[in-house]
Amino acid sequence: MQLEQQNRAKPNSEGWLRVIGLGPGDPALLAPAARAALSEAEDIIGYRTYLQLAGPFRDDQRVHDSDNRVELERARHAFQLAAAGGRVVIVSSGDPGVFAMATAVMEALEQANDPAWGTIDLQIIPGISAAQAAAARIGAPLGHDFCTLSLSDNLKPWSVIARRLQLAAEADLVIALYNPGSHARPHQFNEALALLREHRTPETPVILGRSIGRTDEQVIVTPLAEVDPAQVDMRTVIIIGSSQTRIIEAAAGRRWVYTPRWYPEAG
Amino acid sequence: MQLEQQNRAKPNSEGWLRVIGLGPGDPALLAPAARAALSEAEDIIGYRTYLQLAGPFRDDQRVHDSDNRVELERARHAFQLAAAGGRVVIVSSGDPGVFAMATAVMEALEQANDPAWGTIDLQIIPGISAAQAAAARIGAPLGHDFCTLSLSDNLKPWSVIARRLQLAAEADLVIALYNPGSHARPHQFNEALALLREHRTPETPVILGRSIGRTDEQVIVTPLAEVDPAQVDMRTVIIIGSSQTRIIEAAAGRRWVYTPRWYPEAG
Repeated sequence: MQLEQQNRAKPNSEGWLRVIGLGPGDPALLAPAARAALSEAEDIIGYRTYLQLAGPFRDDQRVHDSDNRVELERARHAFQLAAAGGRVVIVSSGDPGVFAMATAVMEALEQANDPAWGTIDLQIIPGISAAQAAAARIGAPLGHDFCTLSLSDNLKPWSVIARRLQLAAEADLVIALYNPGSHARPHQFNEALALLREHRTPETPVILGRSIGRTDEQVIVTPLAEVDPAQVDMRTVIIIGSSQTRIIEAAAGRRWVYTPRWYPEAG
Repeated sequence: MQLEQQNRAKPNSEGWLRVIGLGPGDPALLAPAARAALSEAEDIIGYRTYLQLAGPFRDDQRVHDSDNRVELERARHAFQLAAAGGRVVIVSSGDPGVFAMATAVMEALEQANDPAWGTIDLQIIPGISAAQAAAARIGAPLGHDFCTLSLSDNLKPWSVIARRLQLAAEADLVIALYNPGSHARPHQFNEALALLREHRTPETPVILGRSIGRTDEQVIVTPLAEVDPAQVDMRTVIIIGSSQTRIIEAAAGRRWVYTPRWYPEAG
């Protein structure tokens, strides 16, 4: 059965829940709708690093910070506050719908199966993702077909991740990688690099974007052969070019990277 | 050779060029940086439908509207105006870096190979894409690994598109489809549907998002088996769920669609 959805209708309740994304961290890239939700909120919930980017807050606003690993608890807490009539915002980085809090909110809603939660005025406000922000800084590497993959094997087996990487490489998609692991747990990114090097030439342009839009922003362009895992941590988004991704050496030492719209006919 | 890029440095020229995205069309989702660029611009260039969404403009601003098919000409015109000292904005819908004007700007820059263009203060300002906006309306279907593919075979052979679809389906990625063709040219979407139906179950949730964030917004949730190509046109973004994408039947007739973070171990 097909259904046209009107999830925007405001139900009969005072409380509401907004799941917002801060974008890359630069206020100039924060959606006005997200800014308005932060201003109207009574309760603001999130990982403390993101709350620091989202603030400052007023004395009449309650700020509930937490560790980064308790997404589901944070989501449940938000529903409880909203069901009790609160105006509640959950803060994510980037786009809440891309490897972020909107999924945990959906999981909490489904698991609770509580009509009082189901009738809450819930809105997800999209944001600009880290991959989009890094891409914009350097040109248009995501200008044509691409995929966005998480290397985290906390909640899925590494075999699924490896197979997805393999097929994405065969499909000649540009690949944006999230959650590449840390210096303490480098195995995911090392294995991903080894796999990608089997499918792409050593010269393939790779972009390492870190803290884009923040004061310590860094964008590195490197050939695939020279990527050093020591340059990558959990705040890095990695964009691996396709066979078509090109570098422009412009005037004044500037370089741009983009993926053209055209694709050559198979020989 | 690795290079850290500082493309934000302002070169010695009065003129500048900003490539902005309007997001899905709702001003509440337009980045303040894009709004500021529109306000500071002397010349504003774009497809006329997008210019209508971006305006109104002041009497002292020159608006250059055009047909949608002349991306490269528009990009060249923008460089010429900026090289002559103008403050120029190119308007895209969504994210200019995703199937939009940033790529054409890069192509124009590379082909011209003109130092006067290469030193222009060029910035690409990212935006919220149509797929992200549609996803946010309905939950979090892009909450885990996904790809973004264009079905347009204007500039690449259909065989490349079909192979990418095939591999993305095998990788069990959520698939966001852009440029599905029109009622006059339905073959791309029909062929894509046939291919996807070989790999995904009939119940796979599919989201058809049209004009998200505008007054005629429409979001349809349908099983893959019931997708009707007549429901799809060039303003529709299509999101095909993975094997894990789930529907929540919430209270008050509301439904949400999301893709969980976890993935079952292979049997």
